[in-house]
Amino acid sequence: MINPFDDTYFMKKALQEAEVAYEKGEIPVGAVIVVEDRIIARTHNLTELLNDVTAHAEMQAITSAANFLGGKYLTKCTLYVTLEPCQMCAGALYWSQVAKIVYGAADHQRGFKTMGTQLHPKTEVVGGILANEAAALMKRFFIEKRNLN
Amino acid sequence: MINPFDDTYFMKKALQEAEVAYEKGEIPVGAVIVVEDRIIARTHNLTELLNDVTAHAEMQAITSAANFLGGKYLTKCTLYVTLEPCQMCAGALYWSQVAKIVYGAADHQRGFKTMGTQLHPKTEVVGGILANEAAALMKRFFIEKRNLN
Repeated sequence: MINPFDDTYFMKKALQEAEVAYEKGEIPVGAVIVVEDRIIARTHNLTELLNDVTAHAEMQAITSAANFLGGKYLTKCTLYVTLEPCQMCAGALYWSQVAKIVYGAADHQRGFKTMGTQLHPKTEVVGGILANEAAALMKRFFIEKRNLN
Repeated sequence: MINPFDDTYFMKKALQEAEVAYEKGEIPVGAVIVVEDRIIARTHNLTELLNDVTAHAEMQAITSAANFLGGKYLTKCTLYVTLEPCQMCAGALYWSQVAKIVYGAADHQRGFKTMGTQLHPKTEVVGGILANEAAALMKRFFIEKRNLN
């Protein structure tokens, strides 16, 4: 049997969240957290609306998933996020001991790989899932923003 | 004239927050954010109460200060925190562009210096203010915790 719930399936859900962010004028990054093929958190970047640099999609997803689970460790969870996490989010994911991180587009400027942020040794990382779609949305956002200013 | 509002003065306020955390059974870390000798945020670690790895004192202080200021950049603020910030908090401070970070005790295991987390190039850092007091409180907490288990 083919499992319909693969990484691409859940990344599409994260991309839908990124599109919601885009519509709100937020840098379009979306995230979902999954346990046993079930989405337990859906979030998108809200730094503009909340006036808060800590309101990245991943940070909200971690808080939301922990709230749902009633415990702060996400050792059985997979985080899907459309953009490679930054230092802050990777640092939060380190504390959460998340089982797996799947990201879309790479962030060669401020992503955790470039910055050298350490994840928990048990965390698996997969990059590049629907990377073109995520990158295209980001590009569209910044082009429109430039044209508006 | 001697300025009574020096780094030690504000670190004492952060230590008072750490003591509140201690009384609640939280890892005792406290923080305050100051603008022009005025405290605009007072916070302490709440990871246990909130069941949330992101609820470090610094993260809450950043959110609280941005809320007070009505803007997400803390370019005129100084953060006082009793323990050297971790990767997550240093990553958040990077985004906040905070003017100055003053910390108490070093965290040679998980502090941002050991982990190599990058701060904003304009952020000044001072460590070791009331370090013994902050470290003593942490030590007391972990000894008591060990004895209870």
